[in-house]
Amino acid sequence: MAGGSREPGRTVTSKVLAVIEPFEEHRRSLSLTEISEYSGLPLSTTHRLVGELVEWGFLSKGVNGRYQLGLRLWALAQNTGRQLRDAARPFVQDLFAITGELSHLAVRDGFDVLYIERIYGTKRVPRASRVGGRLPMHSTAVGKVILAFEEDWLREAYLGRQLEQSTPHTHTNPARLAEELVQIREQGYAITAEEVRLGAASIAVPVFHTGRVGAGLGIVTLSSQASTLVRHLPVLRGISAQIERATAHIPLETLLGSVLPSRS
Amino acid sequence: MAGGSREPGRTVTSKVLAVIEPFEEHRRSLSLTEISEYSGLPLSTTHRLVGELVEWGFLSKGVNGRYQLGLRLWALAQNTGRQLRDAARPFVQDLFAITGELSHLAVRDGFDVLYIERIYGTKRVPRASRVGGRLPMHSTAVGKVILAFEEDWLREAYLGRQLEQSTPHTHTNPARLAEELVQIREQGYAITAEEVRLGAASIAVPVFHTGRVGAGLGIVTLSSQASTLVRHLPVLRGISAQIERATAHIPLETLLGSVLPSRS
Repeated sequence: MAGGSREPGRTVTSKVLAVIEPFEEHRRSLSLTEISEYSGLPLSTTHRLVGELVEWGFLSKGVNGRYQLGLRLWALAQNTGRQLRDAARPFVQDLFAITGELSHLAVRDGFDVLYIERIYGTKRVPRASRVGGRLPMHSTAVGKVILAFEEDWLREAYLGRQLEQSTPHTHTNPARLAEELVQIREQGYAITAEEVRLGAASIAVPVFHTGRVGAGLGIVTLSSQASTLVRHLPVLRGISAQIERATAHIPLETLLGSVLPSRS
Repeated sequence: MAGGSREPGRTVTSKVLAVIEPFEEHRRSLSLTEISEYSGLPLSTTHRLVGELVEWGFLSKGVNGRYQLGLRLWALAQNTGRQLRDAARPFVQDLFAITGELSHLAVRDGFDVLYIERIYGTKRVPRASRVGGRLPMHSTAVGKVILAFEEDWLREAYLGRQLEQSTPHTHTNPARLAEELVQIREQGYAITAEEVRLGAASIAVPVFHTGRVGAGLGIVTLSSQASTLVRHLPVLRGISAQIERATAHIPLETLLGSVLPSRS
């Protein structure tokens, strides 16, 4: 499928996407030369595509001549999973208001957890999650709890992969992780201490939708408070139940999160 | 610029964007036929482009066979103006916590205000704003306050346009609006009552960056409380000053909001 491209083997859509992709990893603004280098496209092609994307508002050109993702793209993307985020947000806010701890909600996307909501105050906790950011499932409390309640084939496929060691404390032994997930499923919550970031600990509970685990709801504190995290369980469970009630009417197909591990 | 397209007069980039555009207006999922109709592209072209966009994660196909914007697009877009939103969010949250009223922050994009943050509780207020949503500048308090402190040429260009009448109470007379904006600039805040939505009233103050108005910070209440809105001024001004301090270090080019009215 050349898709009308003059360069064989690469569709024009893939070239447009190649121009956008560098902005996934490099979160600041990029120069035309940098976009050309990262995308592997000739400068002339990059120049033309970038120009068209700027015209649409997909990219924007700063006063320094560098490019960043445009406001129109940002506004467009707000429509993704809006129903879920709008419904869940006040409850995540309640969780933060009650516990005073960084509170977040994450869904599974492929083999990652993707953070879709995160409320925090001025209290400092070593940060790992960010809205729109991904982390491995096995090293985060929200990820562990989703993995524990997911279908067997998915959990097995996950554990059969090379598991990233984020810190010296990350559990990466597949057999021991499998045991841990059984225990999480039995007790209904997951706790991690310094598995994704030194100095931070977290606890999470599942949020169900149509009988399946749809999301993980959790809080993050300093790792020095890891042993007292279970005291937040009643609140976490109460808020999770409220999110379940508030999202039960949302059709599965408009929810965030993919049913199949689309990106491995 | 045919851009390698087989259909003259339309670049391939514009076709890719034409497939995406229907998702701006139609916020739910769309069928292939609908995307083809809205984009004006043949079904075969639509099929191919949609397939490529799904593969990338730009669109996703639901269990009902309909398409929606994908998670990867949403995650990508979170990088837009992240510094500003991350810096401002805790303060908007404080504003909500202190006043108990729907609190939001908006920037100017072209001739619209674009809401970038919005914190609310369970209290019911007629809704107009949504994160990622746009509203006219002249009928919203955040918009009026930005317009009042913007440069003369921009204000004049704005008032020279046809002004949308959202409700019977919307101020649309250019001469009277110009006077109102002078007064807003003098008093340092804007108040609207039922100008954008019946039943709602709002108050807003400017947020400055590098000597220019960068955003509007406001709260929305029931219009029955419009006359008591000024009691929130000290809090609004205090929080605005905090946002100014927290965002002063962010370079102008990575802030949200365009310097020129790019979309009129």
